[in-house]
This record gives sequence, structure tokens and C-alpha cells, in this order.
Amino acid sequence: MSDENDKKWFDKKISRRDFLKKAGMVGAGAAIGASGAGAIFANMFSGKANQVVGNEEISFYGEHQSGIATPVQKNVYFAVLDLHSTDKEEIKQMFKDWTDYSEKLMKGELVAPELANHLVPPLDTGETVGLNPYRLTITFGISPSFLDKLKLDNKKMEEFKDLPHFPRDQIKDKYKGGDICIQACADDAQVAFHAVRNLVRKGRALITLKWTQAGFLPIGNGKETPRNLFGFKDGTENPKNNNDFKNVVWYDKNNWLKNGTFLIVRRIQMHLETWDRTNLQEQENTFGRYKESGAPFGETDEFATIDINKKGPDGKPVLPIDSHVYLAKKADVKIARRAFSYSNGIDEVSGQFDAGLLFICFQKHPDQFIKIQNSLGNDDKLNEYITHVGTGIFACFGGIKKGEYIGQKLFE
Amino acid sequence: MSDENDKKWFDKKISRRDFLKKAGMVGAGAAIGASGAGAIFANMFSGKANQVVGNEEISFYGEHQSGIATPVQKNVYFAVLDLHSTDKEEIKQMFKDWTDYSEKLMKGELVAPELANHLVPPLDTGETVGLNPYRLTITFGISPSFLDKLKLDNKKMEEFKDLPHFPRDQIKDKYKGGDICIQACADDAQVAFHAVRNLVRKGRALITLKWTQAGFLPIGNGKETPRNLFGFKDGTENPKNNNDFKNVVWYDKNNWLKNGTFLIVRRIQMHLETWDRTNLQEQENTFGRYKESGAPFGETDEFATIDINKKGPDGKPVLPIDSHVYLAKKADVKIARRAFSYSNGIDEVSGQFDAGLLFICFQKHPDQFIKIQNSLGNDDKLNEYITHVGTGIFACFGGIKKGEYIGQKLFE
Repeated sequence: MSDENDKKWFDKKISRRDFLKKAGMVGAGAAIGASGAGAIFANMFSGKANQVVGNEEISFYGEHQSGIATPVQKNVYFAVLDLHSTDKEEIKQMFKDWTDYSEKLMKGELVAPELANHLVPPLDTGETVGLNPYRLTITFGISPSFLDKLKLDNKKMEEFKDLPHFPRDQIKDKYKGGDICIQACADDAQVAFHAVRNLVRKGRALITLKWTQAGFLPIGNGKETPRNLFGFKDGTENPKNNNDFKNVVWYDKNNWLKNGTFLIVRRIQMHLETWDRTNLQEQENTFGRYKESGAPFGETDEFATIDINKKGPDGKPVLPIDSHVYLAKKADVKIARRAFSYSNGIDEVSGQFDAGLLFICFQKHPDQFIKIQNSLGNDDKLNEYITHVGTGIFACFGGIKKGEYIGQKLFE
Repeated sequence: MSDENDKKWFDKKISRRDFLKKAGMVGAGAAIGASGAGAIFANMFSGKANQVVGNEEISFYGEHQSGIATPVQKNVYFAVLDLHSTDKEEIKQMFKDWTDYSEKLMKGELVAPELANHLVPPLDTGETVGLNPYRLTITFGISPSFLDKLKLDNKKMEEFKDLPHFPRDQIKDKYKGGDICIQACADDAQVAFHAVRNLVRKGRALITLKWTQAGFLPIGNGKETPRNLFGFKDGTENPKNNNDFKNVVWYDKNNWLKNGTFLIVRRIQMHLETWDRTNLQEQENTFGRYKESGAPFGETDEFATIDINKKGPDGKPVLPIDSHVYLAKKADVKIARRAFSYSNGIDEVSGQFDAGLLFICFQKHPDQFIKIQNSLGNDDKLNEYITHVGTGIFACFGGIKKGEYIGQKLFE
């Protein structure tokens, strides 16, 4: 087509915001602060039987980053990136650009206004035009190697180092390491993917993709813990209120990570076929929970406090001492668990489903997770059915105010 | 735990149906017939700004299988299976079992009542307990090799054979062939995965997994064509009413496939990074559509009829003759397109996103697709940005009445 045709025939460009307005999608949901209020599984739906998703807009700004204490969404797109530059100024600029992009993405806007000039690539890849934000949250973290590469030696912290090798780990090189993580969560898979894609695109001169994984959760009525692919509820003792998050999650020492947290990710392959051939008694003994209700043995409510010393009327312990729940609880520390299921087609070696858990958790000190994983690593009956194949630790910055940029306290 | 403890401590088992009733989830949505009524993109949401998903229950029974004319869902789990038995009676029984399972799955029930005996594996894998059906549909099809393997020579049809090699095809062995396909679609990824997992599990003595792919769609307000990962709308000329489906989709000769259709699947890798470096003019010329509105060149409505002979005021053709829309339309046949996006982490060769389109379409005669694909194959500008890596053709049986089983007319 000639340029002349171009002028005549192309639609007048409208901004995505205008587009949304046209569709009556803006302003219906109030902005929700990302300041850590509310339990992970708060009742976020207004309907009784119908599930209402996506319309609320979450702010990128606040005391803490979003996507940590935010009630969990249906989808995640998690990306680990490698730095290909050691120029601090360039990287700083990338985080400034990412701040600008993230604010817009979380509002459901284009990452940049559409250009009148058709002879350049669109600034936004465009696959979310016309959609609401679907409760999109974007969470950034950096790894210990990031500090090394940028020679930020004075920002190092004793506790912030690569995770140890845990008993039975079978970590693959392709699923470990990396310098930066971006966690995009939303109630729509395309919205989450679009966010990471556009952020990566903006930084592509400075970064490459190390590994990524899409994940999903069945949110249901939003009041129960979503089931994993073994059909069980897990992580029912998550922080439930601001005070819990303060105690368990938010880093509170007075340095660049203040109001941030440590994100730990584990890619856990679940051997579904083996599990599916295991009898119900054994399955329940493995978790130490009833499958149907999700309650720990001896309780009826999934959210009941787990008491590892509890004995039945016959004087015997209620929880098997090699059960997942017993060993996790025995570590006597808490974490905020925000895990998603994944399914990646067929495992080429086994010919079975390649599926599992993209385990993500947040804690103010890595030792919280390390203590739990060490307790599980040797004895957990669940190890017969799972394999940890990926790992990562990232320091997620504190939240920022408008006018600041994500990571600012690290760079300045 | 001892059996004695078992009796004392395990929750009284309740059926999933009871569970749903308890949660107030049953009966809220009326059953929707699968008989082909309604357009693919019917307005399926009752809220204005909020999107309400999943609550409607779709019947497995009807004149046609569900998941073909059903308004498209947010998620698909598509599986291609290989037969490992040539015993017709065994396979027939598997389809009977699958019919029983599918009816229950689409109602949001367990595939079989939970057993009192804890010493056997649960019959249902359980990861959807407590969820509503999320508009689950399950669609079964068989390939030409299925007829060969079961020596059903008298059921063969001249038009039902493996697809030809199309220009520029780069089909991988792992993504072609197979004897049976199962398409599970739902507004929840875990519900779709659960359906295929439990069906495969039931038949595991007779079948193995060949390839599977999960896919997603941004449904938005349900009135617009969902955008693909290039940010474009495609397939806007889908059948819109019963008459269209009758003309385009439903097989109407008087044999075992009556009221069924041919499903064609193409796994299409999309080279996102290349596309993202292409200017907007070139992107729009490639599709022959405006990116923002989705309308074909020269029109303002995405659903406008495409007129390949239309000329602008300057007398020049409006649609580039190598554009996707021009060439698809030039073939002068219609299909029912029901495609989903996919993202599978990183392509290990390129280090870029492994993402694309799980293209699925339905037609009463394979030549409809073949004619379009031949028109596209040589000249479509879009070929610079995509690669077809997987392929399949399956005959999807007609619908059944309660008491019948899926595929019955083929076997008897």
C-alpha cells in the first residue's frame, strides 16, 4: 500500500485507554492499594455463585510491591533474565523504563501512546488492546549475581546468596541462576504474558531470557486454598493479615531492601501417573491432610492450625512423622506461599504429562524457606512423587511512590 | 496410620456434587444445549463491566458434540493419543467409559463416586473438587490411522485422509499423526487439564500420549474476536448462527459421521521477536487488517464482510494481494475457526519465547481447510513470521442421546 492510501484508509488511532472507555471498562473497579492489606485468599469476588474476575485495577505504587500480598490471581508468567551489560547507568535506565511501563500495564493502558507514524514498529505489542487489567501485578527481583555483575559490593547482605543444594535436588542448569526475575500475575494468561513480553522487549539490548514458565490456579470461590495437581490443598497456613505479613514477609532492616522481601522459586516436577496409582490412604498420609476437605489430620477445617503434637483418643500421634505437613510445620517458621500449577505438554523421556508446581514463596529471610526445605528434603514422603528441577532466589525491592523508580534505593 | 485411626479420623466422604451444593454452586446456571445454537462469540456474560465465567453447565448430549459451536472458552487442553490396542471391543468399551466420564466431568462431578475403601487409588484425581464446571466441553475425534488400526475399512471415506504437505510446512514428527484427539475447553485451565488427565488415565492400558498442548484466549467482553499474540484479530468471518454451521461445519451425509465434523489442528509457531521489529504498516499489510479495530482494510467493523475486489477512491485495490485476509478469502470457502494462543517457555534453539497459535478449525469437508491453506501457503506474507510445526486431522463424531455412547455409529 502506498503512503497515500495509508492516510486515507487507516483508522484514526485511539489510545487503549480511550478504547477501554468506549467499552465501558474504565472506572468500574476502584484501584486497590498494593500495600499488603488483605489475606492471600481474601474473598475477592462480589457474586455469590458467579466468579467475577479482572476488573479491579491494582496500583503499581505503595509501601510494598504488588503480587506478594495481593490475593492470588488465576495466572502467572514468571521470567528469569540474564544481564548482558554491566553498565550501571544503562541498567538503572532500564528499571526506570520498567517502572513507567509497569504503571501503564497495571492500569490496562498501552505501554506507550500509539505513534502516528506507521513506518516504525508499534511500541506496544497490542495483544491486550480492549481488555481490562485483569488484576495484573508485576513484581521485580534481583539475584546475588546481579549485585556481583554490577559490582554493587556495598549492597550485599550476608543472608542473600544462592540457595544451598537440598537433599534430593535434581536441579537442571537451564532452570537455575539468572540475574533478574519478573513475576507477572493476572486473571488472564494473555495479560500476564503481554506484560513480560513488553518489559523484556524494552530491555532487550541489556538482557536475555534464561527461563520462563506460565502457571495457573483454580481460584473457585476465592475462599478456599486452590488445589494442586495431586488434588490436595497445601499452604493453608499462609499469612492472613497485615500483621502476619509484617512478621513473616516484609524485610525491615534499614537498607535498600526495606519493605521488600526475598522471593524463592522452585520448579517442582510432579509425577502424576505415579501419584494416581497410589491409594487414597497413602496419598493422605503423604500430605498429612484429608484430600476432600484439605484439613490436617485430626481437624475438619482446612485453615485449622496444624498441631504436630496432637494425639488421637488412642494416644497415637495424629500426623505421620514423615508427612509433608508434619515436617513443614516441624521447621517452626512461616513463609508466604504463592504457588501455581503448570503443564507443559509431554515429558519426552517418560512420555507422561510434564506437569508440576511453580512454587513461589516470600519471606523476610531466606532461612525461613531453607529451614523448611531442609526439614522436608530428607524425610518428606512427598519426595517419592516430586522432583525439584529448578531454583532461584531474588530480592524483591520495596514499593515506591509515584516519581520514584523500582530499585531506586539499590542504585542510589 | 493404622486402619483403626483411619476409621476414627478421616472425614466422612462427601460427593463432589454434595460439595458443590454446600458451596451454593449447583443449579445457578441453566444447562446449555450443545446443539450448535449461538455464535462462537455470543455475548455470554451477564455483567456489564465484570466478566462472569464458568458457572453454566453444558450438556454432553445433543445433536452435535460440544466444543465446536460452543462459544469459545478461555482455555484448551488438546491431546493427541496413540492406540496401543487393535481390539475393537476393548476400544469400544473405552469410548463407553469416556462417555460416562465426560457426562460427569461436564456437570462438574467426580468421574466416579469416591470409594469408602482408602486402600485403593481414588477414581478421580481430585484437583477440581469444589469447582464449578467452568463451561467445560469435551470433544472426541479419530484419525484415518484409527480406522486402519481397527481394520474398519468399510468406514473409510475418500476425503478422510492425512493432510497433504503444504508449502513451507516444517512439521516435526512429534507433532503429527496420532489416532485419537481429545479437545477439552473450559474457562479454567485446571478444569480442562483435569478432564484430559482423567480420560487418559481411564484408557491408559489401550493408549499413550502422542502430544498435548495447553492454550489460552483473552475473552474480554465476549463480543470481540480475541487477539492473537501478534496483537491482531483473525477469523472474524466465523459461522454466526445455526444456518452457517449447517452450511460450513456439520457433516451431513448419511453415515457414521452424520452430524459430526472434521477437526483440523495446526501447531503454528509465531516468531514474536521478528514480528515486534516490524513496522505497523507492514504488520497491517501482512494481515490486511487495521491492528486496533481488527477491521479489514477499507472497513471500520471487525466483522465486516471481506471484499477482495474492493477498490479505494484512487481505483487501487484496498487489500494487498499477498495479505493473509486477501488470500484466505480468495479461496472462497469458509471454516469454523476455534484457535488458542500458547506459550511454552523458551525455545532452546533461538533463546526466544516459544509461543504461537494452536490453530483448530472445523469443517464438513477437509478440502475447505486445504483450499485455504494452499492459497496461503505460497504467497501469504504472514509466512515470514510463522512456522507450521504440527498437524492433524480428526473426524469428530456426531452428538449422542443419553444411553448412547460416543462413536457408537462407527463401531456398530
